[in-house]
Formats: sequence, structure tokens, C-alpha cells
Amino acid sequence: MGDAAGRRERDPRGFLRTLFDAAVEAASPAKTLAGFLPPPPKGRTIVVGAGKAAAAMAAAVEAAWRGPLEGLVVTRYGHGAPTKRVEVVEASHPMPDAAGAAAAARILERVKGLTEDDLVLCLISGGASALLALPARGVSFEEKRAINAALLRSGADIAAMNCVRKHLSAIKGGRLALAAAPANVVGLIISDVPGDDPATIGSGPTVADPTTSAEALAILRRYRIEASPSVVAHLESAASETPKPGDARFAKVSNVIVATPFAALRAAADVARAVGVTPVLLGDAIEGEAREVGRVLAGVALSAARHDAPAAAPCVLLSGGETTVTMRGKGRGGRNAEFLLALAIALAGAPRIFALAADTDGIDGSEDNAGAFIAPDTLARAAALGLNPRQCLADNDAYSLFAALGDLVVTGPTRTNVNDFRAILIEQAV
Amino acid sequence: MGDAAGRRERDPRGFLRTLFDAAVEAASPAKTLAGFLPPPPKGRTIVVGAGKAAAAMAAAVEAAWRGPLEGLVVTRYGHGAPTKRVEVVEASHPMPDAAGAAAAARILERVKGLTEDDLVLCLISGGASALLALPARGVSFEEKRAINAALLRSGADIAAMNCVRKHLSAIKGGRLALAAAPANVVGLIISDVPGDDPATIGSGPTVADPTTSAEALAILRRYRIEASPSVVAHLESAASETPKPGDARFAKVSNVIVATPFAALRAAADVARAVGVTPVLLGDAIEGEAREVGRVLAGVALSAARHDAPAAAPCVLLSGGETTVTMRGKGRGGRNAEFLLALAIALAGAPRIFALAADTDGIDGSEDNAGAFIAPDTLARAAALGLNPRQCLADNDAYSLFAALGDLVVTGPTRTNVNDFRAILIEQAV
Repeated sequence: MGDAAGRRERDPRGFLRTLFDAAVEAASPAKTLAGFLPPPPKGRTIVVGAGKAAAAMAAAVEAAWRGPLEGLVVTRYGHGAPTKRVEVVEASHPMPDAAGAAAAARILERVKGLTEDDLVLCLISGGASALLALPARGVSFEEKRAINAALLRSGADIAAMNCVRKHLSAIKGGRLALAAAPANVVGLIISDVPGDDPATIGSGPTVADPTTSAEALAILRRYRIEASPSVVAHLESAASETPKPGDARFAKVSNVIVATPFAALRAAADVARAVGVTPVLLGDAIEGEAREVGRVLAGVALSAARHDAPAAAPCVLLSGGETTVTMRGKGRGGRNAEFLLALAIALAGAPRIFALAADTDGIDGSEDNAGAFIAPDTLARAAALGLNPRQCLADNDAYSLFAALGDLVVTGPTRTNVNDFRAILIEQAV
Repeated sequence: MGDAAGRRERDPRGFLRTLFDAAVEAASPAKTLAGFLPPPPKGRTIVVGAGKAAAAMAAAVEAAWRGPLEGLVVTRYGHGAPTKRVEVVEASHPMPDAAGAAAAARILERVKGLTEDDLVLCLISGGASALLALPARGVSFEEKRAINAALLRSGADIAAMNCVRKHLSAIKGGRLALAAAPANVVGLIISDVPGDDPATIGSGPTVADPTTSAEALAILRRYRIEASPSVVAHLESAASETPKPGDARFAKVSNVIVATPFAALRAAADVARAVGVTPVLLGDAIEGEAREVGRVLAGVALSAARHDAPAAAPCVLLSGGETTVTMRGKGRGGRNAEFLLALAIALAGAPRIFALAADTDGIDGSEDNAGAFIAPDTLARAAALGLNPRQCLADNDAYSLFAALGDLVVTGPTRTNVNDFRAILIEQAV
């Protein structure tokens, strides 16, 4: 940040945290949702929904809605928020549990028997897939859960996982919207996927599904996921097929995206620009094995430091999307921590480069942190504590390393979810 | 390219090829070397050197030099160029052979017995490591060759490979400069590594070496490379240690970089900008597993297409560096072809995105092509031929796929080497 007396030293950790907070704030339902609400209907308004932002979205609807309102949403344990008229149920994510299944069954009941004058507001955000885990007839809860767990371990991307989930589900892939007919259905959606395709977010319970049962079977084969004969029989039956785009039963269904990963990145970019740090938006669609993404973005950061490209320092490389972690070790750590550890190793102590990576939902993987922070001295400080960063990475144990360094980023559940947030700051030479 | 009558259709393949040619041209010795030559000495001038650009560099010296000149350089088979006074020997790369070993021994002989009035011009470019493969006393040629082959298969990065090579060599890691004392030594270097560190390029035969024998041993252990007891004994002996920075014996040695990967990328950027395509320089330091780099850069390209970030279409993402391929299958293909196939799979036919990736030396891996080209219809055309792109990638068989499609980029040896070149073009919607 320039001023007349010369450049003042920035606090990189505080600055990067400010960017992250701006991104999360831009995706907050309280800030974004009201402007997208339809007018109240003649009949009843039923609020249903699921996802890490479901409680916060329900609270935002309550705050803005004129008229009667009732309903039920399901969110992740710890992601609840106070509501008055819409019941909030908490359930397990990423591993589904019985609480989620029961909530999904109640939601399906709740939208049945409505009339053409009624309106269903369906609040969908990331995490809805696991939270609305109600198996299709003929598939047991345990089987669906085992397949889901295997998918999460397999390194399959979110689109592949959702294709399988939709074809084993009683509620996903447009089935919730079908159940609500003949009522009007408005899906209000916070995107956590690159491309912001409503059919993909939360496995699209209100959206016709272009994927097929045959594709779901192919994915199980490709990732060598074991499936019982009854699951295979289900996927080979017509009953497993989801409604397809163009289906006339979707005439009274509309879907709108109320917050996106890219808008969150743009908010962070605005904050950086305002203090004289050039933002470079690498986009909301970064995928790949977390440790390899770390190596690649290290290369971009080193180029900025050495060659002023893609931008001259001070600059910050911003990106979203969702990396994957193929588990090889037995350590602790989410994909953002793993990304950061690989980034630190690839940067090898390069001066003036700092980074924060965190999940905008506030929880990186299954630990209690949103993400972590690295600085040029990360590897040296780890070594001073007797930690071996390469060994930690080999063990998928980045959380333990960052915890020992005191470099976790902890926010608690943010009650929204626009996927991962990564910011790599390249400071000017003094 | 805008004009008054509206945008004319660009030929993406031809355009991307123009960028590649501009990058190679910017790294050509004929274009860059003359300006860096020192004045002729009182005594003799001996030209030695090695690398994929060695013959072209020798020819450039001959064209510009005033005064007597003699010497010997070694280049890769097929990378020779006509010279009059400097002998050009061809040898094997990346697997060293006896021709390279003999040439290295002759080069060491050639610089011995010089005086303070003499000058050695040492022409170094990428590939010099393999071409100057002369084992240290106590290490057999076969052992050194086996270790080098194992390193190439291991996924180790170029810095790690060079550390091992220097400590098993009679000529690398500054040893050539030591042999030339008391003559003046000027290293003229074409960089093929991120950061352009002279100690790393071609294993730095004229540059003091900061790496140690102990590090070389650690790298062999980390990548589980088998080493014989005699190799281990050598690396544990003082004789294996290279001269370190600050060594007084380097007072009459200087090194200058005459061409770099980044300058080559900048030349391509200039060509793009001149026709109204915004260049985004992601830098010269992209490393990582080739297929993962493809996924990551697909994300950046998709963001450009969807969100105008990091730049609005038409734009081109330019990057250099060197990806790695961990061999799992038995197919054919270099790292650029593998990168492109993974990129095409991740892009999944996204419209308006085209890419070219190629090795600036003209040879991608051990095939006869420099690289290849992809378009939105790459996957569809492969499927029409009965090819399975995912299976090709699993088999490390990208070359076969691009050969079948007629989408190889073939240049023959370019007689320079500034590492990989990648250009991803995002066209405007019509």
C-alpha cells in the first residue's frame, strides 16, 4: 500500500484473511438472497431445502418474506442458525446419516398435495447431496452410504459423484420438483461448483438431469467402486432414470443462482485492488489433485516474483474451485491444507510469497479449521519443530503440521459455501 | 482480429503455431548470441560446449567472431548445424552414450594446458547434462547410465536429477571451468530451467555448485534409485564434492545467459497482442505432473471463457517450464502430448478453446514430434476413430492419439531449447 512516506509494511496474514472474509461475506445469504425472492403466491408458501447454507438461507427468507411461511430445511451439524417459522434440522456431512434421510423423507412429504396456487421455495447449497441422502426404492441406506464413502476416497470429481448419487436417490436429479407438482417451485441456489450449473449443485433436486443411469454405472466401474447386485439391478432399471431437460413436468419450475464462487472471488479482488494490490483472477474452476495444484500455482507465483507476470508485485493470485485429495497416508488434513503444504514445498522458502487457502464453508475436510496460512518461513519453522514437511505431505497430514505451527485458519461454520478460496500474495521487494 | 467489417475468423491452429514459432525464434542463437561475446583475447580462443543448441551456438559464434577460433561441441543426434572451424559431434539424449562420453573427454583435454592469455567460450544449453556424461573416477559408465535412466522414470524434477548427475560426473558442477584454469572462461548459456540459474542449466559445467554429495545421496534414497556400493562409496568420499560458490579458482570465470524461456514467452505474447489477442503470461515456471497441469490450466481457460478472467476473450494463456510424466502405461508420448490430452479431457469439448503445447527443442520426449494441437472437437474426432482418450491417457499413449488425429506439431530439431511452450487460445463467441 503506497503512501507519501513510502510503502508501509503489510501484515500478510491479516491482509489475506481480510480477502477471505470478503469472499465469504459476498456469498452470505443475508446479503444476497432477498433480491431473488418471487412475489408471494395466492396459496401457501413452503420453504424446503438443504446444504451448508440452508439455515442461513431460511433465516434470510424469513427476514425478507411478506406473508405466511412454513417449512423445513436440513443443514450440516453445527451450521444451524436461529429461525422462527422454518424448522432447521441438522444432519451429517460428508457422510450421510439417518437424521438427513429422515429430513429428506419429511421434505418429500411436505411438498406433496399442494395446489397450483402454492409456492415451494427450495433453498439449495453445497452439501445438499449428502444431507438429502434418501435412497431410491430398492437401494438400502447402507449400500448408498458405502458407495458414497468409496466415491469420496476415489478421487472422482464432484460431477461424477453427483451423477451416481442422483441415480441412487429418491429426491435428487429433479425428483423433489416432480414431487411438488402442481405447485410452483422456485429453486434458490448458492453455487459451489465451477460453471454454476444448477443441475450439479447439491445434485439438483429441482433441476432436470442430463446424466443417465448408464453413466452412473460407468463411473462406478471407472473408479472400481463395489456395488451390490441390487444396486446394479436398480441402475439397470427404468425406475432409476431421472427426468431429463425439456420434460413438460418442469413447466412451473424455475431455478436461480443467488451467489457464486466467482462473485466471491471478485469481492476479494475488489478489496485487494482498493489497497493497491493487483488481483489476478485465475478463476473459479481450478480442479486437480491438491498437491499438484500447489506445484502449478507455485510456478505462477514464482513467475510473478521474478518476471512481473502475470502481474507485478504487489499482486495476489485468486482462485476457487475444488481440488481433490487421493488418500495415501493416514494423517489429518483437508484439501486446502494439503494444497498449501505442497505449495510451500514447491516455493522452497522463496521470499515475499504468502498464501491462504480455506474452504468458504469454514470446514476444510473433516477437521475444525477452514484452512491454513503459509509464509516464506513455513518450512524453516516446521523443521525447527522437528517436522518433515515432505513426510507430512506423503502422510496426508498437513493439518497436524499447520496446527503445530499455529497457522490454521479457524472461522467455525460460515453458514454459506462457495467452495474453496485460495489467495497467494506476492509482495514487492523492499 | 478486429477490422471495420467485423471480426474475421482466426485459424486457431495456424495462429498458435505462429506463437510457437515466435517463441523458438526468440531463443535462436543466431538471433541472440552475438551481442554477448567478449572481445577476442591475446591468446587462443577455444570453443567448447554441449546441448541441443550447441551446434547452432557454435555457428553463431563463428559468424560473429573476429579472430582465430577452434574447438569442439557436442549436440544431440539430428541437432547438428554446418560449422567451419568448430567441430560438431553428435551424441545421444536423454540416454547418454559412448559418443557423448568420448566428446566430453576430448573437451576436457582441449581446455587443459591453456595460459592466462587464452579464452574458453563454453556454449551450454539444455541437454548438456546427458551429452556431457563422463563419469567420475570410480563410477562406471553403465552405473551412471542406469541411475540416470531410473531418475528419468522416477518423476524427480530437473534440479534433483542434476544434483545427482553433478556428483557422479567428471565435468559438471564447475569441473570444466576448473580444468581450463588459468585461462579466462566465459559461459554463454541458453536457459531451459525456471529461474535461469546457471548452476542448474546443463548441470553447470562452468558454474560453482551449491548442492552437495550428501544431497545427491538423499535424492537417490527419496526416489528409491538403486545405487551400487561403489557409487555410494564415491558419493560418501570427498572426491565427489563439487567446487562451491565463492571458490577462488572461479575468479576468471564468468557466465552469461543469452536466451531464456521467459523471453521466448514474451515474444509470443507480443505476436498475440499485435493481432488483438490478449496474452496472459502464466510464467516460465510451471511444473507438476503433466496430466494434472492439464486439469489446472483447463480450469483457468474455462474461467476466461465464462468470466473474462484472468482476461476476456480473445486471449491466450502462455506458459513455460517443464512438466513431468510418471510412466504408468506402455504407450508413446512426451510430456506436452500428455498435458494436451489431459487438457482436452478436462475441457470436455468446451467451445472456443484451442491449445498447442510443444517442446521448443522440437522433440517432445522421444518421439519425432515437437508437440500437438487440440480443438473443441478433439475428443469427438478421437471417438469417431474408435479411440478412447481416457484409456490413451492411462496408457501414457497421447502420441498415438494425436498421430491418428493428424494433430501432431512437427518441426524437426529447432537447434535451441528454452523448455516447454504452452498456448491456450480462448476465442470470442461469434
